[in-house]
Amino acid sequence: MSEAEDLKYVGTRPVRPDGLEKVTGQANYGADEALPGMIFGAVVRSPHAHARVTGIDGTKALALDGVFSVITADDFPNRAGISVGRKRFMENVIASEKVLYIGQPVAAIAAKTHALAREAAELVEVSYEVLEPVLDMKAAMSAAAPVLHDDMFTQGLAETPDTPSNVSTRTAITKGDVEAGFAEAEVVIERTFVTPMVHQGYIEPHACVANFNQDGRATVWCSSQGHFGIRDMTALATGMDTGDIRVVAQEIGGGFGGKTVVYLEPLALKLSEKAHRPVKMVMSREEVFQCTGPASGTINTVKIGAKKDGTITAMYADLLYEAGAFPGSPLGAGAMCIFAPYDVENILIEGFEVVVNKPRVAAYRAPGAPQSMFAGESVLDELAQTLDMDPIDLRLKNAAKEGTHAAYGPRFKKIGLVECLEAAKKHPHYSAPLGENTGRGIAVGFWFNAGNNSSAEVHVAESGMIQIVEGSPDIGGSRAAMAIMAAETLQVPYDRIRVKVGDTDSTGFCNTTGGSRTTFATGMAVINACEDVVAQLKARAAITWGIDAEQVEWEDGEARPGPGVNADVEPLKLAKIARSFPKTGGPISARASLNAQGPGPSFAVNMCDIEVDPDTGRTTVQRFTAIQDAGRAIHPDYVEGQMQGGAAQGIGWALNEEYIYDAEGQQENPGFLDYRIPVASDLPMIDTEIVEVNNDTHPYGVRGVGETPIIAPLPAVGNAVSRALGKRMSELPLSPPKVLAAIDGD
Amino acid sequence: MSEAEDLKYVGTRPVRPDGLEKVTGQANYGADEALPGMIFGAVVRSPHAHARVTGIDGTKALALDGVFSVITADDFPNRAGISVGRKRFMENVIASEKVLYIGQPVAAIAAKTHALAREAAELVEVSYEVLEPVLDMKAAMSAAAPVLHDDMFTQGLAETPDTPSNVSTRTAITKGDVEAGFAEAEVVIERTFVTPMVHQGYIEPHACVANFNQDGRATVWCSSQGHFGIRDMTALATGMDTGDIRVVAQEIGGGFGGKTVVYLEPLALKLSEKAHRPVKMVMSREEVFQCTGPASGTINTVKIGAKKDGTITAMYADLLYEAGAFPGSPLGAGAMCIFAPYDVENILIEGFEVVVNKPRVAAYRAPGAPQSMFAGESVLDELAQTLDMDPIDLRLKNAAKEGTHAAYGPRFKKIGLVECLEAAKKHPHYSAPLGENTGRGIAVGFWFNAGNNSSAEVHVAESGMIQIVEGSPDIGGSRAAMAIMAAETLQVPYDRIRVKVGDTDSTGFCNTTGGSRTTFATGMAVINACEDVVAQLKARAAITWGIDAEQVEWEDGEARPGPGVNADVEPLKLAKIARSFPKTGGPISARASLNAQGPGPSFAVNMCDIEVDPDTGRTTVQRFTAIQDAGRAIHPDYVEGQMQGGAAQGIGWALNEEYIYDAEGQQENPGFLDYRIPVASDLPMIDTEIVEVNNDTHPYGVRGVGETPIIAPLPAVGNAVSRALGKRMSELPLSPPKVLAAIDGD
Repeated sequence: MSEAEDLKYVGTRPVRPDGLEKVTGQANYGADEALPGMIFGAVVRSPHAHARVTGIDGTKALALDGVFSVITADDFPNRAGISVGRKRFMENVIASEKVLYIGQPVAAIAAKTHALAREAAELVEVSYEVLEPVLDMKAAMSAAAPVLHDDMFTQGLAETPDTPSNVSTRTAITKGDVEAGFAEAEVVIERTFVTPMVHQGYIEPHACVANFNQDGRATVWCSSQGHFGIRDMTALATGMDTGDIRVVAQEIGGGFGGKTVVYLEPLALKLSEKAHRPVKMVMSREEVFQCTGPASGTINTVKIGAKKDGTITAMYADLLYEAGAFPGSPLGAGAMCIFAPYDVENILIEGFEVVVNKPRVAAYRAPGAPQSMFAGESVLDELAQTLDMDPIDLRLKNAAKEGTHAAYGPRFKKIGLVECLEAAKKHPHYSAPLGENTGRGIAVGFWFNAGNNSSAEVHVAESGMIQIVEGSPDIGGSRAAMAIMAAETLQVPYDRIRVKVGDTDSTGFCNTTGGSRTTFATGMAVINACEDVVAQLKARAAITWGIDAEQVEWEDGEARPGPGVNADVEPLKLAKIARSFPKTGGPISARASLNAQGPGPSFAVNMCDIEVDPDTGRTTVQRFTAIQDAGRAIHPDYVEGQMQGGAAQGIGWALNEEYIYDAEGQQENPGFLDYRIPVASDLPMIDTEIVEVNNDTHPYGVRGVGETPIIAPLPAVGNAVSRALGKRMSELPLSPPKVLAAIDGD
Repeated sequence: MSEAEDLKYVGTRPVRPDGLEKVTGQANYGADEALPGMIFGAVVRSPHAHARVTGIDGTKALALDGVFSVITADDFPNRAGISVGRKRFMENVIASEKVLYIGQPVAAIAAKTHALAREAAELVEVSYEVLEPVLDMKAAMSAAAPVLHDDMFTQGLAETPDTPSNVSTRTAITKGDVEAGFAEAEVVIERTFVTPMVHQGYIEPHACVANFNQDGRATVWCSSQGHFGIRDMTALATGMDTGDIRVVAQEIGGGFGGKTVVYLEPLALKLSEKAHRPVKMVMSREEVFQCTGPASGTINTVKIGAKKDGTITAMYADLLYEAGAFPGSPLGAGAMCIFAPYDVENILIEGFEVVVNKPRVAAYRAPGAPQSMFAGESVLDELAQTLDMDPIDLRLKNAAKEGTHAAYGPRFKKIGLVECLEAAKKHPHYSAPLGENTGRGIAVGFWFNAGNNSSAEVHVAESGMIQIVEGSPDIGGSRAAMAIMAAETLQVPYDRIRVKVGDTDSTGFCNTTGGSRTTFATGMAVINACEDVVAQLKARAAITWGIDAEQVEWEDGEARPGPGVNADVEPLKLAKIARSFPKTGGPISARASLNAQGPGPSFAVNMCDIEVDPDTGRTTVQRFTAIQDAGRAIHPDYVEGQMQGGAAQGIGWALNEEYIYDAEGQQENPGFLDYRIPVASDLPMIDTEIVEVNNDTHPYGVRGVGETPIIAPLPAVGNAVSRALGKRMSELPLSPPKVLAAIDGD
C-alpha cells in the first residue's frame, strides 16, 4: 500500500546492526560499565508512605570499614527559594522534609562492595514523625484527607484556591456545545471505568555508573531513553552545569517511558564526588516496582450520545488520574487522545490529577491514552450493541479524516483511520466464526506522535563506509532505521552504513526517545545530513572533473556527469571520491539539527477473540490482529515488532497486571512472581497488518509507530470479554476473580 | 610584538582543562582501559638481527592453561601480490619470511595474565636460518654487504638498477649552479658530521586494548598522536575496513613523532578476534627501545662557499640517513630544511637512505632536520670563525625573507627569521661575559610546518556551555589552544568552553598530530565551526526579534541589534539564546572540515653557553636562550613549553644520547639507566623569547611551534663546545670521552 514504490532500501528488512552483539552478550547495558577503583552505592529508602523526616545519622554506617561516603538531601543544592517544580523533582530524587511513599530515597551510601553498601544502608539511622497516608484517589480528594503537599494548590482553575489540596491539576478540552449535543441524541450511554496502577515491566532494572572528576566535570554511564534528558535532569538535581556532565548511552533493556526519569544518577554522582571514586548503582526488582514511576491508575467516566443511525452528537469524559506522590501524570495526553478518532461536533473532556502516597508515576507507552481510550472505546462498543450496529461501521460513520478538527486542537492532515477500519473489516479474522464462551472485541487506538529536537552527524570514512552519529538511544531498532534512511538518501548499500549513538559531549542535542519521535525526527536529521553529504560528493566529483557541481548527478551511489556535460569522464564511485578527499577540500562530513514539525498522528484498529473459562474465570486470548497506519514503514519487521509488543503489554494490562497495596501503602506484589505480566505461553501469535498512509511532512512518509499499539488492546480485550459474558466489564484487570464475579452476577 | 593587539583571549595563559585530571592520576592513558573478560597479550620477538624464519610452532604455548590464542603472520592477509609498501609495513608489524632486526615480532600470544602471556611467549618455538647482519650504513652500501631486501632497488634514480641494494632512496634538491657558486667563493669550508640513532624517549610505553566484536567491528583504545592514523594503519595491517575500526584516543604520555606508527594494535586485534575477548598489550621499556622507531643516525657532509664579506655563494650537502630495517627515514625533510634559512643562489643537496639491521626509524620531532641542520649550522659557524665575523651577522647577511625562493620549492611569504636573529643579537645573553673553559654557540632552526586535514564540531549546550569535539589528540595543550580560539571567535569566556577529543566513529577525520599542524589546522576547523555557530546565534536572535539576521551583531558573547534596527530590544546573551533553542529551529551545533593550506614556516634562533670540565670532559650547559617566531602565540605558556622541551631534547641529543649496538645487532643500552636522556639537574632554566610575526593564512596568525625548537640546540651546543675547545666537533653525542679526546688532541 506504499505510495512510493520506487524506494530501494526503505521497506526492506535487513538484519539489525546491534543484533549479534546483543545475542552474544557483548552489548553493554546500564550496569555493565566497570572502572578502576569503582565502588558501589545503595539507597536508604523510606519505610513509611507518609512521614516527616526529623533526623538522619550516618555515623554508624560511615564507621564501617569499606564505607566511603554517605549523602543526604543536604549534599544537594538548597531547596529554599527554588521553583516548586524543581523542588518536587529533587524531593523525589532524595527527600529533605517529608517522605510521600514507601521507598522514597532519604539517603544513599557508597562502599567497597554492593553487599557492604546494602548492609551499611541499614545502619543509617533515620527518624520519622509518621503521618497518615492516603492511597485512594477519591479519598484523597475529600476535604478530610491528609494533605501531601502544604504548598500545592489545584492548577488549571480560574483562581488559585486558598487551601492546599491533593488535586494538583484540573484540565478541560471543549469543542462545540456538549449540552446541545446530548439534547440531540436519541441514545446516550454513560459508564465509569477503573484502571489500576501498572508498571512498564522492563526487564533491565535502573542502573548507572557515575564518575565525578577532579576538574568538576562528570561522566555518567546509564541505560535510558534519552541520555541528554538524563544529563539535564542530573544537572537540575545536582546544580551542575549541563555542559559539565557527559552521559554515555548504554544499551537499554526496555524502557517504555519509564526510563525517561532520573532516580540513581544524581545520587551516584554525589556519592562519587564525596568518595573521589566512580560509583555504580543498580536497583533490585523490588526497588524498580516500589520506587520508580508506574502508570497512573484512573477512574474515568464517559458519556456518548448518538442518533439511531449511529451519528454521534456528543462525547463527554470525566477523567481522574493518579499522579502518585508528585504531580506529573499523563492526564493531558489521556484527554487529548480519548475522542480524537472521531469527527464529532460537540465534545467536552474534563480531568483531574490527584496525588496519593504512592510512587510518582512516569510515562508508560502512549502515556495516559490506554486508560482514557479503554473507557471511550468501551462505551462506543456498548453504543454499537445498543444501536445493534457493527462496531466497525459505527466507527467508520464517525471516523476522523483529513480536515477533521480534532477537539485537542489540530486540523488533521492526511491520516489513516478509515484505511485501518476498512482493513479490519476486510480481514479474515473479522468474519471468522466464534465458538462457545468467546467474544470478539474491536477498538481503535490513537496517538498524536511527537517531533521535537534531533541532531545527526554523518562522516564518510576513507573506505567509503558511512558513519552516522546521533543522540537517540537505540530502543526499538533505530540504528537499523537510521541506516536504511541513510542508505536510501545516499543510494549506498545498507551494509556500508554504521550507526553509533554518541554521548552527550560528542553529538548534537537530541530529545529523549518518547512520543514515538525518533524514526521521524532523528530520521529527518539523518536524512538532512545525508543530503548535505550527497551535495558534497557531487561537488568533489565536479572538482575532479573540472565542471560545476550542478552538472553532477548522484545515482546508485556514484557521481555521474549530467546530460549536458561534454567532458569524457567515467562515473566516480563513492569509495573513490572518499579516498581522494584531501585533494578535493578535506574530510567529507555533514551534520543537521532540527526541531521536527508535523509528526503525523497514528491510528490503529485491533481486534481480538477471547475465551472465558466459566469454571475458573480465566480469560484466554485466542486470536489477536493489530492493524496500524505506520505512514511509510522504514523497517517493517520493527514496525510489526512494535505492534506485537504493544499488544502483549496491552493484553497484560487488560487481563492481569495491577499494583496491590496494603492499608499502610506497602506494595504487596513487588516482583514478577506476584505482579503477573504475560509470558509467551499466555499469548497467541499477534497478527499484524501495516497500513501505509504516508506522512507527507517526512521525506519517506514516516509516522511514529511505537506507542499507538498499546492503546487499543485494553478496550479490544475488554469489549471481547464483555461480549463473551454479555455484561459490560468496567474495571481492569479482567482477572479471574472479576470475571467469575461477573459470571456469578455480582 | 603582536600584530593584533585587540584579541581578548588569544595570547592569554589560562589553566589547561586537562591539568587537574592529569596531576591527580585520573586521566586514562594507553594502558588504562579495562574491560570485562579482558586478557593480556605478549609478543614473540626475533632474537636475531638478520635471519630467515623457517618455522613457528605455538603448540606448547597454547597447551598452557590460561592461554587463549597464538597468532603469526598467517593470521593476517596474505602478502602475495600486495604492494611492496604495504608488505614492508606488514612485515614490521609481524614478520612472515625474514626478520631484519632484533625484536621484530614473529608471533603474539594472549593469556589470562600479563605474566602468563610473557611466559607462554617463551614457549613458542621459532626456527631461524641465521644470516649475517649489517649495522653500519657505509658497510651496508658496499657491494659485498648482506642484502636485507631481495626486492629493494634504489629509488630516485633515472633507471631502476638491476641488482637489489641496501640503498633504498636517492634524492636531490637543486637551485642555481652550485659549481659556479663555489667558483665565485673566496672561502670554502667542508666538513662531515655524524649523528647517532637516538630515541624520542617518551615516558609512556606503547600500550593498547583491542576488542574485536562478534559483528566484525572492533574498538581499539590506545595512546597515539593520531587515532585516525592508527585506525587506518590497523585496517591496512588486518585487512579490515577503516569504517569497522573505532579507535578511542587515550591521553598520551609523550610521542614526539614516535607514536604515529602501529606496533601492538593489529596484533592485539587479531589476538582478540581469535580469543573472543578484549586484549591488552603493553610494551616494556626494553621493547620500546629495541622495537619501536628511533630517529635516523646520519653521516652528513656540508660544503659552503662565501665571499670575504660573508655573502654565501654556494651551499652543498651530501646526506646519508639510516632507515633501519625498512625504508621510511626523514631524509627528504632533512634535505628540505638544511639550507632553507638562507637566501642563496646556488644550492645542491644530495641524499641517500640506507637500510640496516636495526629497528625501522620513525618520526622524531622535526624529523630529519636536527641531523642535517647540525651539519649545516656547524659549517656556518666555522665559516663565521674563518671570516672573523659575528655568527649572527653572517646569518643576517644571508637570511631568507619574504619573497626568498627556498631551494625546496616555495617562495616564502611573511617569515620571522630576521626578527629572530635581531632579537638574539639584542638579547642580554648575547653580550654577557664568558668565563674560562666556556663557549657560546648560536644556531638557526627551521621547520616548514604542515597543514593537512582536520575537522571539528561545536555544540551549544542548553546552559550556553560550548562543547567542542575534534579529532586531534591533546599532546601539547591543544584542548586549551582550541578553547582559546573558540573563546575568541565566539566572544565567550574560556571557562565556558569544553573541548573533547572524539573517537574515530564520532568526529570528522583529522590527520595525525605531526608536522606542527594541530593548532594551525584543527584550530582553523574549530574557528570555522565557531563562526558558523555565531551565524546561527545571530539568526536565532533575529527570529526572536523578528528582524533579519544581517541586522544582528555579535559582540561580547551576546546578540545585539545593529545600528539600523528600530525595534526596542534588549541584547540576548548566549545562554538565553541557547536555552530557547527549540523555539528557534532546534539544537545549535556546527561543524567544519578542511585540508588546511598555508601553514607558515617557522624559524628559531638558539644560543647557549657551555662549560667544559677539562678533567672529566663533562659539558655543562650554563645558559640557554631559545628565540622563535610562533606567528601568533595562542597560549604563550605552551609555546614556551614547546621551546623549552625541544631545547631539553636537543641538548640530550647533542651531549649524551645514542643507541649502542654490539656486533650482532643487539642494543646494549635499552633502558633509561644506560641510555642517558637529560634530567632536570642536567639543564639550566631554558629562557624563551617568543617572536610574533603573524601567519596571515590563519585567522589568528598561528604558525606551528612544536618541532622547530628541537633543531637549533644540536648545532648551538656543538658550536659552543667547538668554540670552548677551539676545535670543530663533528660527531654526536659530545659525551665526555669525545670531549676528552678532543682536549687530548686525538
